[in-house]
Amino acid sequence: MKIIIIGAQAAGASAAAKAKRRDPNATICIYEKSDIVSFGACGLPYFIGNHFGDENEMISRTPEQFAKDGIEIKTLHEVIAIDPNLKKVTVKDIKNNNCFDDDYDKLLIAVGAIPIIPPLENRQLENIFTLRDMYDGLAIKKALNQNTNVVVIGAGYIGLEITESLVKLNKNVKLIQLDDRVLTDAFDPELTEIIEENLKQHCDLHLQEQVQGFEGEQKVTHVITDKAKYPADIVIIATGVKPNSEVYKHLNIETLSNGAIVVDNYGQTNIADIYAAGDCVALHHRVSQSMTYIPLATGANKLGKIVGDNLAGGNNQFPGTLGTSALRVFDIEAGRTGLTEQQAIKAGIPYKTVVVKDKNHSNYVEGQTSVTAKLIYHAETRILLGGQIAGGSGAVLRTNSLATAIWANMKIDELAMMDFLYAPPFSRPWDILNIAGGIAK
Amino acid sequence: MKIIIIGAQAAGASAAAKAKRRDPNATICIYEKSDIVSFGACGLPYFIGNHFGDENEMISRTPEQFAKDGIEIKTLHEVIAIDPNLKKVTVKDIKNNNCFDDDYDKLLIAVGAIPIIPPLENRQLENIFTLRDMYDGLAIKKALNQNTNVVVIGAGYIGLEITESLVKLNKNVKLIQLDDRVLTDAFDPELTEIIEENLKQHCDLHLQEQVQGFEGEQKVTHVITDKAKYPADIVIIATGVKPNSEVYKHLNIETLSNGAIVVDNYGQTNIADIYAAGDCVALHHRVSQSMTYIPLATGANKLGKIVGDNLAGGNNQFPGTLGTSALRVFDIEAGRTGLTEQQAIKAGIPYKTVVVKDKNHSNYVEGQTSVTAKLIYHAETRILLGGQIAGGSGAVLRTNSLATAIWANMKIDELAMMDFLYAPPFSRPWDILNIAGGIAK
Repeated sequence: MKIIIIGAQAAGASAAAKAKRRDPNATICIYEKSDIVSFGACGLPYFIGNHFGDENEMISRTPEQFAKDGIEIKTLHEVIAIDPNLKKVTVKDIKNNNCFDDDYDKLLIAVGAIPIIPPLENRQLENIFTLRDMYDGLAIKKALNQNTNVVVIGAGYIGLEITESLVKLNKNVKLIQLDDRVLTDAFDPELTEIIEENLKQHCDLHLQEQVQGFEGEQKVTHVITDKAKYPADIVIIATGVKPNSEVYKHLNIETLSNGAIVVDNYGQTNIADIYAAGDCVALHHRVSQSMTYIPLATGANKLGKIVGDNLAGGNNQFPGTLGTSALRVFDIEAGRTGLTEQQAIKAGIPYKTVVVKDKNHSNYVEGQTSVTAKLIYHAETRILLGGQIAGGSGAVLRTNSLATAIWANMKIDELAMMDFLYAPPFSRPWDILNIAGGIAK
Repeated sequence: MKIIIIGAQAAGASAAAKAKRRDPNATICIYEKSDIVSFGACGLPYFIGNHFGDENEMISRTPEQFAKDGIEIKTLHEVIAIDPNLKKVTVKDIKNNNCFDDDYDKLLIAVGAIPIIPPLENRQLENIFTLRDMYDGLAIKKALNQNTNVVVIGAGYIGLEITESLVKLNKNVKLIQLDDRVLTDAFDPELTEIIEENLKQHCDLHLQEQVQGFEGEQKVTHVITDKAKYPADIVIIATGVKPNSEVYKHLNIETLSNGAIVVDNYGQTNIADIYAAGDCVALHHRVSQSMTYIPLATGANKLGKIVGDNLAGGNNQFPGTLGTSALRVFDIEAGRTGLTEQQAIKAGIPYKTVVVKDKNHSNYVEGQTSVTAKLIYHAETRILLGGQIAGGSGAVLRTNSLATAIWANMKIDELAMMDFLYAPPFSRPWDILNIAGGIAK
């Protein structure tokens, strides 16, 4: 059994480890284009913010550790073509540009995602960065040393996290967002208002403003938008990611319109013996029951593990995603799971919502803060569709309770009497989710 | 419709408010023996620890606020007899010792619990306290002013919380526990070990030691145990509570052996038109399917609300308890839900367990600490029976996810791929509950 895996980050690495555990005799070879494996990009804002100094802390396992388990990782090797009929890949050794073919019994495409770069004038100027791999992190950290004016473009998770890190480094940060609110895809307005109100106390937030390009000689000096021109020593473009479809776009592989590979619950593509996982695939959404592009480390690791088992002869199914995610930005933590109101509309599901403003815990324990929860549920069956929670300490971890309830197809009303814990430092006798369940119309 | 409620704390107050909302024309009268209503005893350790100075912060609503809603509360009125045939109660006005009768259509017994006092020599000495009502709190706070040596007897929730408060007031605290570990009823040894290890760094913990009595003239000066004699200016007895059965023990009412009233899911006792709720009742346990004495504010409020609705003509059922509870003590937070291993044995349920030691969140974010989770599940069906989590920040709120999973009769294995959130300040890509679900044998 010869298994080839393209890509050695979250999904590829998880799959390789699991496949080897299931079938110790399998030959497993991972081709990785970069020279870095098992890299956790979620650490980049914390690395740049000097929460830690050694970039290797973002790496879970080295090629040497994989080799010990009998998994060969060839870094700086790019798979440039796949032949599903002959079941072989063509690989370029980036160090010397030599190409060679390699045969597989089973192939896993785990090539991840790449940043979306809007068409911006003078994009090629120095000190204009994206934030995706370790080299982005190292380059930004170096450039920050002598510079103070930073413009961050895009107010999604990464944009907000890097903004916080830079503000805490005493940089002068402008955060520019095309939409009329932050985190548009993940949260509804009742929640993003809370985040924005707090953001404005810490940085210069520009909503509904379109970046058009940059000025500068060699290095960027200004950012031009449809409203103004801002001095900028450094620009970070954080306008989302898309599947890195380069290697499979010549195949007749089924994808979503953005290039995300469609797989079944076993992680199989529509092409025999080719599997896919990670930030290049669409995931089955448990609520909308549709294939959805949600590039998160959680889904990449989970589908990666399932596929790894299946590559080595297993028969496991991925149970689907809820798109559960969270962030902390300045004084606010926010989590979400399932469908937002906007996503329920898009999915054509009749829904109702309930919004509750409450406190995280008892008034007489230090650190009481406001928490807001919004729950979305089916208008007829009353089954939970999604939920979002934002506020001070303790907001985010409540998201996992909601995720569990949605996973179990629970009705909103069941939350009213759910036996959530009460202790003064953590909650009040009626948890905010009890209240939401009790007042939902 | 005339509703009489005995007791104006969590359950009685919740019931009254809900009954009045359902039937604004109902006449509702609450008799409360003390002069304090809607008191939250969980605040006492924080009050004594000077987290706040005004004892009224522990009171949710005053008699005046109830009166505004048309609910009459007669404080310092003790119901001394119930006649279920004539449907009347006999009430003593404590201020003048006058007695009178009052008729009811529906009666709610919500008299709560009282401390269990072991038979100890010289218990009557001054400065030996229990910790249950506001006057206990005020008296302890006053006595603490000039004194430094405190002995706390009993290492349950209250014993541990008051120990922390007193240590932080720089008192010299000995905590004496009869059992060989703390929190015996709520947690299994794998978890209590973690709590004990941390406790020992902050106070003088004595396990497996039996207090026999006290010495002193007017005030206590020493505590005598089976092992030694300790100087003590103040003693706090926190050895648990039992139903306050005084008012109903002459009735032929069904109770558990400890006097906890058995009610059906509607909150009705075996006597027509008499309901009960709060710390004097047994609750239906969703996992063991038996009536269990779990005197917690959460259950009292919830059953109180259900019963309030039913008193006024409703037809609601209490869905049961999981005994979910939590505490923070020094550097450890701990939560539990469902059955412990010991409780599974007692319930005769075939079970397996899984214990995971992990971290609360990513290594590169400040505040990473250890978290330990123990899950108990049915040996054959693999359905979750209970769970306990202890560790640093973020341990406790995960308990609510477990409670939700147990509520939904989820299998342990479903946790492996559950879509829990990942963000570096809150978790790791595989949450500790994912790991537990994945490795459970």
